[in-house]
Amino acid sequence: MKIVIIGSGNVSYHLAKAFQQNNIPVSQIFGRNESDLKFISDQLQIPFSTSKLNDADLYLICVSDGSVGEVSRLITKENCLVAHTSGSLPKEILAGNYRKASFYPLQTFSKSKNLDYKEIPFFVESEGEEDLELLKNIALKISKKVMVSTYEKRKYIHLTAVFACNFVNHLYARAKEISDSQEIPFDYFLPLIKETTQKIEILEPKLAQTGPAIRNDERVLKAHEELITDQEQLKIYKIMNESIKKMYEL
Amino acid sequence: MKIVIIGSGNVSYHLAKAFQQNNIPVSQIFGRNESDLKFISDQLQIPFSTSKLNDADLYLICVSDGSVGEVSRLITKENCLVAHTSGSLPKEILAGNYRKASFYPLQTFSKSKNLDYKEIPFFVESEGEEDLELLKNIALKISKKVMVSTYEKRKYIHLTAVFACNFVNHLYARAKEISDSQEIPFDYFLPLIKETTQKIEILEPKLAQTGPAIRNDERVLKAHEELITDQEQLKIYKIMNESIKKMYEL
Repeated sequence: MKIVIIGSGNVSYHLAKAFQQNNIPVSQIFGRNESDLKFISDQLQIPFSTSKLNDADLYLICVSDGSVGEVSRLITKENCLVAHTSGSLPKEILAGNYRKASFYPLQTFSKSKNLDYKEIPFFVESEGEEDLELLKNIALKISKKVMVSTYEKRKYIHLTAVFACNFVNHLYARAKEISDSQEIPFDYFLPLIKETTQKIEILEPKLAQTGPAIRNDERVLKAHEELITDQEQLKIYKIMNESIKKMYEL
Repeated sequence: MKIVIIGSGNVSYHLAKAFQQNNIPVSQIFGRNESDLKFISDQLQIPFSTSKLNDADLYLICVSDGSVGEVSRLITKENCLVAHTSGSLPKEILAGNYRKASFYPLQTFSKSKNLDYKEIPFFVESEGEEDLELLKNIALKISKKVMVSTYEKRKYIHLTAVFACNFVNHLYARAKEISDSQEIPFDYFLPLIKETTQKIEILEPKLAQTGPAIRNDERVLKAHEELITDQEQLKIYKIMNESIKKMYEL
Protein backbone atom coordinates (compact mmCIF):
# COMPACT_ATOMS: atom_id res chain seq x y z
CA MET A 1 0.00 0.00 0.00
CA LYS A 2 1.46 3.31 -1.10
CA ILE A 3 0.95 6.34 1.13
CA VAL A 4 1.60 9.98 0.22
CA ILE A 5 1.44 12.82 2.75
CA ILE A 6 0.50 16.26 1.43
CA GLY A 7 1.66 19.30 3.36
CA SER A 8 4.90 20.50 4.91
CA GLY A 9 3.78 21.77 8.32
CA ASN A 10 3.82 20.40 11.86
CA VAL A 11 1.08 17.80 11.35
CA SER A 12 2.70 16.49 8.19
CA TYR A 13 6.08 16.18 9.90
CA HIS A 14 4.75 14.41 12.98
CA LEU A 15 2.44 12.04 11.10
CA ALA A 16 5.25 11.10 8.71
CA LYS A 17 7.53 10.51 11.70
CA ALA A 18 4.88 8.45 13.53
CA PHE A 19 4.31 6.35 10.40
CA GLN A 20 8.01 5.79 9.92
CA GLN A 21 8.60 4.84 13.56
CA ASN A 22 5.89 2.21 13.22
CA ASN A 23 7.13 0.76 9.94
CA ILE A 24 4.38 2.22 7.78
CA PRO A 25 6.24 3.38 4.66
CA VAL A 26 5.48 6.86 3.31
CA SER A 27 6.46 7.04 -0.35
CA GLN A 28 6.37 10.82 -0.78
CA ILE A 29 5.85 14.14 0.99
CA PHE A 30 4.26 16.62 -1.38
CA GLY A 31 3.78 20.35 -0.85
CA ARG A 32 4.57 23.91 -1.84
CA ASN A 33 7.22 24.97 0.65
CA GLU A 34 10.48 23.45 -0.59
CA SER A 35 12.62 24.26 2.44
CA ASP A 36 10.05 22.81 4.87
CA LEU A 37 9.69 19.70 2.69
CA LYS A 38 13.46 19.35 2.51
CA PHE A 39 13.68 19.53 6.30
CA ILE A 40 11.13 16.71 6.71
CA SER A 41 12.73 14.72 3.90
CA ASP A 42 16.20 15.03 5.42
CA GLN A 43 14.98 14.13 8.90
CA LEU A 44 12.91 11.14 7.88
CA GLN A 45 14.54 10.00 4.62
CA ILE A 46 11.32 10.32 2.62
CA PRO A 47 11.38 11.66 -0.97
CA PHE A 48 9.62 14.98 -1.50
CA SER A 49 8.27 16.95 -4.44
CA THR A 50 6.74 20.37 -5.01
CA SER A 51 5.63 19.59 -8.56
CA LYS A 52 4.74 15.94 -9.23
CA LEU A 53 2.32 14.13 -6.94
CA ASN A 54 3.14 10.41 -6.87
CA ASP A 55 0.59 7.69 -7.45
CA ALA A 56 -0.71 6.27 -4.15
CA ASP A 57 -3.46 4.20 -2.51
CA LEU A 58 -3.85 6.63 0.40
CA TYR A 59 -3.32 10.37 0.37
CA LEU A 60 -3.24 12.16 3.72
CA ILE A 61 -3.88 15.88 3.44
CA CYS A 62 -2.15 17.80 6.25
CA VAL A 63 -2.60 21.43 5.24
CA SER A 64 -4.41 24.33 6.94
CA ASP A 65 -8.21 24.10 6.91
CA GLY A 66 -8.59 26.86 4.35
CA SER A 67 -6.44 25.01 1.81
CA VAL A 68 -7.83 21.47 2.14
CA GLY A 69 -10.47 21.90 -0.60
CA GLU A 70 -8.04 23.37 -3.11
CA VAL A 71 -5.30 20.83 -2.37
CA SER A 72 -7.77 17.95 -2.64
CA ARG A 73 -8.33 18.91 -6.30
CA LEU A 74 -4.70 18.09 -7.10
CA ILE A 75 -5.53 14.40 -6.69
CA THR A 76 -6.98 13.35 -10.02
CA LYS A 77 -6.75 9.61 -9.43
CA GLU A 78 -10.13 7.93 -8.75
CA ASN A 79 -9.31 4.51 -7.30
CA CYS A 80 -7.79 5.70 -4.07
CA LEU A 81 -8.59 6.88 -0.55
CA VAL A 82 -8.07 10.50 0.47
CA ALA A 83 -8.24 11.62 4.11
CA HIS A 84 -7.85 15.08 5.59
CA THR A 85 -6.54 15.60 9.13
CA SER A 86 -8.69 18.56 10.20
CA GLY A 87 -10.87 18.70 13.30
CA SER A 88 -13.35 21.09 11.78
CA LEU A 89 -13.97 20.03 8.20
CA PRO A 90 -16.40 17.41 6.84
CA LYS A 91 -14.91 14.73 4.60
CA GLU A 92 -17.13 16.13 1.82
CA ILE A 93 -14.76 19.13 1.56
CA LEU A 94 -12.54 16.76 -0.43
CA ALA A 95 -13.30 17.55 -4.08
CA GLY A 96 -12.50 14.52 -6.22
CA ASN A 97 -13.94 11.24 -7.43
CA TYR A 98 -12.01 9.18 -4.91
CA ARG A 99 -13.16 7.65 -1.61
CA LYS A 100 -13.22 10.27 1.15
CA ALA A 101 -12.22 10.08 4.80
CA SER A 102 -11.05 11.98 7.84
CA PHE A 103 -8.06 11.04 10.01
CA TYR A 104 -7.90 13.48 12.94
CA PRO A 105 -5.12 13.35 15.55
CA LEU A 106 -6.12 15.24 18.70
CA GLN A 107 -2.84 16.89 19.61
CA THR A 108 -0.91 20.15 19.31
CA PHE A 109 2.11 19.74 17.07
CA SER A 110 5.36 21.70 16.92
CA LYS A 111 8.34 20.45 14.94
CA SER A 112 10.77 21.21 17.76
CA LYS A 113 8.90 19.14 20.36
CA ASN A 114 9.00 15.33 20.41
CA LEU A 115 5.74 13.52 21.08
CA ASP A 116 4.62 10.17 22.44
CA TYR A 117 2.43 9.12 19.51
CA LYS A 118 1.00 6.13 21.45
CA GLU A 119 -0.99 8.57 23.60
CA ILE A 120 -2.53 10.63 20.80
CA PRO A 121 -6.24 9.93 20.28
CA PHE A 122 -7.08 9.44 16.59
CA PHE A 123 -10.60 10.01 15.30
CA VAL A 124 -11.36 8.36 11.95
CA GLU A 125 -14.34 8.55 9.61
CA SER A 126 -14.91 7.23 6.09
CA GLU A 127 -17.59 6.53 3.51
CA GLY A 128 -17.35 2.73 3.67
CA GLU A 129 -16.64 -0.01 6.23
CA GLU A 130 -13.54 -1.26 4.46
CA ASP A 131 -11.82 2.12 4.46
CA LEU A 132 -12.77 2.60 8.10
CA GLU A 133 -11.06 -0.68 9.01
CA LEU A 134 -8.01 0.34 7.00
CA LEU A 135 -7.71 3.72 8.72
CA LYS A 136 -8.36 2.22 12.15
CA ASN A 137 -5.62 -0.34 11.57
CA ILE A 138 -3.14 2.32 10.48
CA ALA A 139 -3.99 4.52 13.45
CA LEU A 140 -3.72 1.53 15.82
CA LYS A 141 -0.15 0.94 14.68
CA ILE A 142 0.67 4.47 15.87
CA SER A 143 -1.57 4.95 18.90
CA LYS A 144 -3.40 2.98 21.59
CA LYS A 145 -6.41 5.31 21.29
CA VAL A 146 -8.37 5.09 18.07
CA MET A 147 -12.02 6.08 17.84
CA VAL A 148 -14.57 6.37 15.06
CA SER A 149 -16.17 9.80 15.01
CA THR A 150 -18.72 11.58 12.90
CA TYR A 151 -18.15 15.12 11.63
CA GLU A 152 -20.84 16.33 14.06
CA LYS A 153 -18.93 14.95 17.05
CA ARG A 154 -15.52 15.93 15.69
CA LYS A 155 -16.55 19.60 15.59
CA TYR A 156 -17.20 19.50 19.35
CA ILE A 157 -13.94 17.63 19.98
CA HIS A 158 -12.14 20.44 18.16
CA LEU A 159 -14.06 23.15 20.04
CA THR A 160 -13.21 21.51 23.38
CA ALA A 161 -9.56 21.35 22.32
CA VAL A 162 -9.56 25.08 21.56
CA PHE A 163 -10.59 25.78 25.17
CA ALA A 164 -8.29 23.16 26.73
CA CYS A 165 -5.22 23.85 24.61
CA ASN A 166 -5.23 27.01 22.44
CA PHE A 167 -6.83 29.28 25.05
CA VAL A 168 -4.75 27.75 27.84
CA ASN A 169 -1.57 28.50 25.91
CA HIS A 170 -2.77 32.05 25.37
CA LEU A 171 -3.28 32.45 29.13
CA TYR A 172 0.33 31.32 29.58
CA ALA A 173 1.39 33.97 27.06
CA ARG A 174 -0.61 36.69 28.85
CA ALA A 175 0.68 35.50 32.24
CA LYS A 176 4.23 35.79 30.93
CA GLU A 177 3.54 39.35 29.77
CA ILE A 178 2.64 40.23 33.35
CA SER A 179 5.65 38.51 34.94
CA ASP A 180 7.99 39.93 32.28
CA SER A 181 6.70 43.44 32.99
CA GLN A 182 7.95 43.07 36.60
CA GLU A 183 11.10 41.15 35.68
CA ILE A 184 9.83 38.06 37.47
CA PRO A 185 11.28 34.93 35.79
CA PHE A 186 8.46 32.92 34.18
CA ASP A 187 10.25 29.74 35.31
CA TYR A 188 8.91 30.39 38.81
CA PHE A 189 5.45 29.52 37.52
CA LEU A 190 6.29 26.22 35.83
CA PRO A 191 5.77 24.01 38.93
CA LEU A 192 2.38 25.69 39.48
CA ILE A 193 1.42 25.22 35.83
CA LYS A 194 2.48 21.57 35.92
CA GLU A 195 0.52 20.93 39.10
CA THR A 196 -2.62 22.65 37.76
CA THR A 197 -2.58 20.20 34.86
CA GLN A 198 -1.64 17.11 36.87
CA LYS A 199 -4.42 17.84 39.33
CA ILE A 200 -7.19 17.37 36.78
CA GLU A 201 -5.96 13.86 36.06
CA ILE A 202 -7.26 12.89 39.50
CA LEU A 203 -9.79 15.65 40.27
CA GLU A 204 -12.69 17.01 38.17
CA PRO A 205 -11.60 20.49 36.97
CA LYS A 206 -14.74 21.93 38.56
CA LEU A 207 -13.67 20.52 41.95
CA ALA A 208 -10.05 21.62 41.52
CA GLN A 209 -10.84 25.35 41.18
CA THR A 210 -8.89 27.68 43.49
CA GLY A 211 -8.20 31.42 43.45
CA PRO A 212 -9.85 34.71 44.43
CA ALA A 213 -12.98 34.40 42.25
CA ILE A 214 -14.20 31.12 43.76
CA ARG A 215 -13.47 32.53 47.23
CA ASN A 216 -15.53 35.56 46.13
CA ASP A 217 -12.67 37.71 47.41
CA GLU A 218 -13.72 41.12 46.10
CA ARG A 219 -10.76 42.86 47.72
CA VAL A 220 -8.22 40.81 45.75
CA LEU A 221 -10.26 40.96 42.54
CA LYS A 222 -10.43 44.74 42.75
CA ALA A 223 -6.74 45.07 43.68
CA HIS A 224 -5.78 42.90 40.68
CA GLU A 225 -7.94 44.97 38.33
CA GLU A 226 -6.08 48.05 39.51
CA LEU A 227 -2.70 46.39 38.91
CA ILE A 228 -3.50 45.47 35.31
CA THR A 229 -2.59 48.16 32.79
CA ASP A 230 -3.13 46.21 29.55
CA GLN A 231 -6.69 46.32 28.20
CA GLU A 232 -6.64 42.79 26.75
CA GLN A 233 -5.39 41.36 30.04
CA LEU A 234 -8.11 43.27 31.89
CA LYS A 235 -10.88 41.98 29.59
CA ILE A 236 -9.70 38.41 30.14
CA TYR A 237 -9.39 38.99 33.88
CA LYS A 238 -12.96 40.23 34.18
CA ILE A 239 -14.61 37.68 31.88
CA MET A 240 -12.84 34.71 33.49
CA ASN A 241 -13.74 35.78 37.02
CA GLU A 242 -17.36 36.44 36.05
CA SER A 243 -17.48 33.02 34.43
CA ILE A 244 -16.03 31.33 37.54
CA LYS A 245 -18.61 33.10 39.74
CA LYS A 246 -21.43 32.03 37.40
CA MET A 247 -20.26 28.41 37.37
CA TYR A 248 -20.35 28.21 41.17
CA GLU A 249 -23.38 30.50 41.50
CA LEU A 250 -21.50 33.05 43.64
CA MET B 1 12.19 26.72 68.08
CA LYS B 2 8.45 26.18 68.47
CA ILE B 3 6.24 26.53 65.40
CA VAL B 4 2.44 26.76 65.35
CA ILE B 5 0.39 26.64 62.16
CA ILE B 6 -2.94 28.45 62.18
CA GLY B 7 -5.63 27.29 59.77
CA SER B 8 -7.16 23.98 58.74
CA GLY B 9 -7.28 24.27 54.95
CA ASN B 10 -5.16 23.01 52.06
CA VAL B 11 -2.20 25.33 52.67
CA SER B 12 -2.08 24.49 56.35
CA TYR B 13 -2.18 20.75 55.62
CA HIS B 14 0.55 20.84 52.96
CA LEU B 15 2.86 23.20 54.87
CA ALA B 16 2.54 21.06 57.99
CA LYS B 17 3.28 17.96 55.91
CA ALA B 18 6.26 19.62 54.19
CA PHE B 19 7.64 20.70 57.59
CA GLN B 20 7.20 17.25 59.04
CA GLN B 21 8.81 15.51 56.04
CA ASN B 22 11.84 17.75 56.50
CA ASN B 23 12.15 17.27 60.27
CA ILE B 24 10.91 20.72 61.22
CA PRO B 25 8.65 20.05 64.21
CA VAL B 26 5.22 21.70 64.28
CA SER B 27 3.96 21.85 67.85
CA GLN B 28 0.31 22.65 67.13
CA ILE B 29 -2.28 23.18 64.44
CA PHE B 30 -4.83 25.75 65.54
CA GLY B 31 -8.10 26.66 63.86
CA ARG B 32 -11.89 26.77 63.94
CA ASN B 33 -12.90 23.71 61.93
CA GLU B 34 -12.52 20.74 64.27
CA SER B 35 -13.06 17.98 61.70
CA ASP B 36 -10.52 19.50 59.29
CA LEU B 37 -8.02 19.96 62.12
CA LYS B 38 -8.60 16.40 63.28
CA PHE B 39 -7.92 15.13 59.74
CA ILE B 40 -4.58 16.97 59.60
CA SER B 41 -3.74 15.95 63.13
CA ASP B 42 -4.46 12.28 62.43
CA GLN B 43 -2.53 12.30 59.17
CA LEU B 44 0.54 14.06 60.53
CA GLN B 45 0.46 13.26 64.26
CA ILE B 46 0.44 16.93 65.28
CA PRO B 47 -1.69 18.12 68.25
CA PHE B 48 -4.54 20.45 67.38
CA SER B 49 -6.77 22.88 69.21
CA THR B 50 -9.79 25.03 68.42
CA SER B 51 -9.62 26.97 71.67
CA LYS B 52 -6.14 27.42 73.14
CA LEU B 53 -3.33 28.77 70.99
CA ASN B 54 0.01 27.38 72.18
CA ASP B 55 3.02 29.52 72.90
CA ALA B 56 5.45 29.58 69.95
CA ASP B 57 8.42 31.37 68.38
CA LEU B 58 6.92 31.32 64.90
CA TYR B 59 3.24 31.41 63.97
CA LEU B 60 2.33 30.67 60.35
CA ILE B 61 -1.11 31.96 59.40
CA CYS B 62 -2.67 29.82 56.63
CA VAL B 63 -6.22 31.12 56.42
CA SER B 64 -8.14 32.80 53.60
CA ASP B 65 -7.04 36.37 52.81
CA GLY B 66 -10.18 37.89 54.30
CA SER B 67 -9.52 36.31 57.70
CA VAL B 68 -5.78 36.97 58.09
CA GLY B 69 -6.22 40.30 59.89
CA GLU B 70 -8.77 38.95 62.36
CA VAL B 71 -6.82 35.73 63.04
CA SER B 72 -3.60 37.69 63.55
CA ARG B 73 -5.25 39.42 66.56
CA LEU B 74 -5.48 36.07 68.36
CA ILE B 75 -1.71 36.16 68.85
CA THR B 76 -1.17 38.31 71.93
CA LYS B 77 2.46 37.33 72.49
CA GLU B 78 4.97 40.06 71.58
CA ASN B 79 8.35 38.34 71.40
CA CYS B 80 7.64 36.15 68.41
CA LEU B 81 7.55 36.11 64.61
CA VAL B 82 4.24 35.90 62.73
CA ALA B 83 4.08 35.21 58.99
CA HIS B 84 1.07 34.97 56.71
CA THR B 85 1.11 32.81 53.58
CA SER B 86 -0.93 35.00 51.24
CA GLY B 87 0.15 36.21 47.81
CA SER B 88 -1.89 39.36 47.96
CA LEU B 89 -1.58 40.80 51.45
CA PRO B 90 1.13 43.06 52.90
CA LYS B 91 2.81 41.86 56.10
CA GLU B 92 1.32 44.98 57.76
CA ILE B 93 -2.11 43.31 57.70
CA LEU B 94 -0.85 41.39 60.73
CA ALA B 95 -2.28 43.26 63.73
CA GLY B 96 -0.11 42.65 66.79
CA ASN B 97 3.03 43.83 68.51
CA TYR B 98 5.13 40.94 67.21
CA ARG B 99 7.62 40.85 64.31
CA LYS B 100 5.80 40.53 60.97
CA ALA B 101 6.61 38.53 57.88
CA SER B 102 5.26 36.87 54.77
CA PHE B 103 5.98 33.27 53.73
CA TYR B 104 4.30 32.66 50.36
CA PRO B 105 4.43 29.28 48.62
CA LEU B 106 3.61 29.64 44.91
CA GLN B 107 1.52 26.54 44.34
CA THR B 108 -2.08 25.33 44.13
CA PHE B 109 -2.92 23.05 47.03
CA SER B 110 -5.55 20.32 47.36
CA LYS B 111 -5.53 17.88 50.23
CA SER B 112 -6.13 14.89 47.96
CA LYS B 113 -3.14 15.59 45.72
CA ASN B 114 0.44 14.87 46.79
CA LEU B 115 3.06 17.47 45.93
CA ASP B 116 6.78 17.61 45.37
CA TYR B 117 7.59 20.35 47.88
CA LYS B 118 11.19 20.65 46.61
CA GLU B 119 9.86 22.32 43.44
CA ILE B 120 7.62 24.91 45.09
CA PRO B 121 9.01 28.46 44.92
CA PHE B 122 8.82 30.21 48.31
CA PHE B 123 8.79 34.01 48.53
CA VAL B 124 9.73 35.42 51.92
CA GLU B 125 9.68 38.92 53.36
CA SER B 126 10.24 40.24 56.88
CA GLU B 127 10.91 43.40 58.86
CA GLY B 128 14.48 42.53 59.84
CA GLU B 129 17.49 40.69 58.42
CA GLU B 130 17.54 38.06 61.16
CA ASP B 131 13.95 36.98 60.57
CA LEU B 132 14.58 36.92 56.84
CA GLU B 133 17.50 34.52 57.32
CA LEU B 134 15.36 32.37 59.60
CA LEU B 135 12.49 32.13 57.11
CA LYS B 136 14.86 31.53 54.20
CA ASN B 137 16.51 28.69 56.10
CA ILE B 138 13.19 27.09 56.93
CA ALA B 139 12.00 27.39 53.33
CA LEU B 140 15.32 25.98 52.07
CA LYS B 141 14.77 22.84 54.11
CA ILE B 142 11.54 22.31 52.18
CA SER B 143 12.32 23.63 48.72
CA LYS B 144 15.21 24.28 46.35
CA LYS B 145 13.65 27.58 45.28
CA VAL B 146 13.56 30.33 47.88
CA MET B 147 13.41 34.00 46.97
CA VAL B 148 13.09 37.24 48.87
CA SER B 149 10.19 39.32 47.56
CA THR B 150 8.60 42.62 48.44
CA TYR B 151 4.83 43.00 48.71
CA GLU B 152 4.88 45.04 45.49
CA LYS B 153 6.44 42.15 43.57
CA ARG B 154 4.41 39.46 45.35
CA LYS B 155 1.17 41.07 44.13
CA TYR B 156 2.28 40.59 40.53
CA ILE B 157 3.43 37.04 41.23
CA HIS B 158 -0.04 36.30 42.55
CA LEU B 159 -1.72 38.01 39.58
CA THR B 160 0.40 36.01 37.14
CA ALA B 161 -0.52 32.83 39.02
CA VAL B 162 -4.22 33.64 38.68
CA PHE B 163 -3.81 33.69 34.87
CA ALA B 164 -1.51 30.66 34.70
CA CYS B 165 -3.35 28.48 37.19
CA ASN B 166 -6.84 29.60 38.29
CA PHE B 167 -8.01 30.72 34.86
CA VAL B 168 -6.39 27.73 33.18
CA ASN B 169 -8.27 25.40 35.50
CA HIS B 170 -11.50 27.24 34.72
CA LEU B 171 -10.87 26.72 30.99
CA TYR B 172 -10.53 23.00 31.72
CA ALA B 173 -13.86 23.13 33.57
CA ARG B 174 -15.56 24.96 30.65
CA ALA B 175 -13.94 22.57 28.14
CA LYS B 176 -15.33 19.63 30.10
CA GLU B 177 -18.81 21.18 29.99
CA ILE B 178 -18.59 21.15 26.21
CA SER B 179 -17.29 17.59 25.93
CA ASP B 180 -19.79 16.35 28.55
CA SER B 181 -22.65 17.93 26.57
CA GLN B 182 -21.74 15.67 23.64
CA GLU B 183 -20.87 12.63 25.75
CA ILE B 184 -17.24 12.85 24.68
CA PRO B 185 -15.00 11.46 27.47
CA PHE B 186 -12.83 14.25 28.87
CA ASP B 187 -9.97 11.73 29.16
CA TYR B 188 -9.47 12.10 25.39
CA PHE B 189 -8.14 15.61 26.04
CA LEU B 190 -5.62 14.77 28.75
CA PRO B 191 -2.69 14.03 26.38
CA LEU B 192 -3.37 17.34 24.60
CA ILE B 193 -3.55 19.21 27.91
CA LYS B 194 -0.33 17.59 29.10
CA GLU B 195 1.47 18.45 25.87
CA THR B 196 0.25 22.08 25.91
CA THR B 197 1.89 22.47 29.30
CA GLN B 198 5.06 20.51 28.53
CA LYS B 199 5.56 22.56 25.38
CA ILE B 200 6.06 25.83 27.26
CA GLU B 201 8.93 24.30 29.21
CA ILE B 202 10.94 24.39 25.98
CA LEU B 203 9.10 27.02 23.90
CA GLU B 204 7.98 30.56 24.79
CA PRO B 205 4.17 30.44 25.17
CA LYS B 206 3.90 33.18 22.55
CA LEU B 207 5.77 30.98 20.06
CA ALA B 208 3.80 27.84 20.98
CA GLN B 209 0.38 29.29 20.05
CA THR B 210 -1.73 27.16 17.68
CA GLY B 211 -5.44 27.10 16.80
CA PRO B 212 -7.95 28.91 14.58
CA ALA B 213 -7.44 32.45 15.96
CA ILE B 214 -3.71 32.64 15.22
CA ARG B 215 -4.39 31.20 11.75
CA ASN B 216 -7.04 33.93 11.42
CA ASP B 217 -9.43 31.19 10.28
CA GLU B 218 -12.71 33.12 10.28
CA ARG B 219 -14.67 30.12 8.97
CA VAL B 220 -13.79 27.95 11.99
CA LEU B 221 -14.20 30.83 14.46
CA LYS B 222 -17.68 31.53 13.13
CA ALA B 223 -18.62 27.84 13.04
CA HIS B 224 -17.50 27.43 16.67
CA GLU B 225 -19.49 30.48 17.76
CA GLU B 226 -22.54 28.87 16.22
CA LEU B 227 -21.89 25.58 18.04
CA ILE B 228 -21.69 27.22 21.47
CA THR B 229 -25.03 27.51 23.25
CA ASP B 230 -23.81 28.64 26.69
CA GLN B 231 -23.41 32.41 27.09
CA GLU B 232 -20.42 32.23 29.46
CA GLN B 233 -18.60 29.86 27.10
CA LEU B 234 -19.35 32.21 24.21
CA LYS B 235 -18.03 35.27 26.06
CA ILE B 236 -14.79 33.44 26.85
CA TYR B 237 -14.54 32.17 23.27
CA LYS B 238 -14.83 35.66 21.81
CA ILE B 239 -12.57 37.46 24.30
CA MET B 240 -9.81 34.86 24.05
CA ASN B 241 -9.79 34.87 20.26
CA GLU B 242 -9.80 38.67 20.13
CA SER B 243 -6.92 38.72 22.59
CA ILE B 244 -4.94 36.19 20.51
CA LYS B 245 -5.50 38.27 17.37
CA LYS B 246 -4.39 41.43 19.17
CA MET B 247 -1.23 39.77 20.51
CA TYR B 248 -0.15 38.72 17.02
CA GLU B 249 -1.54 41.86 15.34
CA LEU B 250 -3.89 39.89 13.07
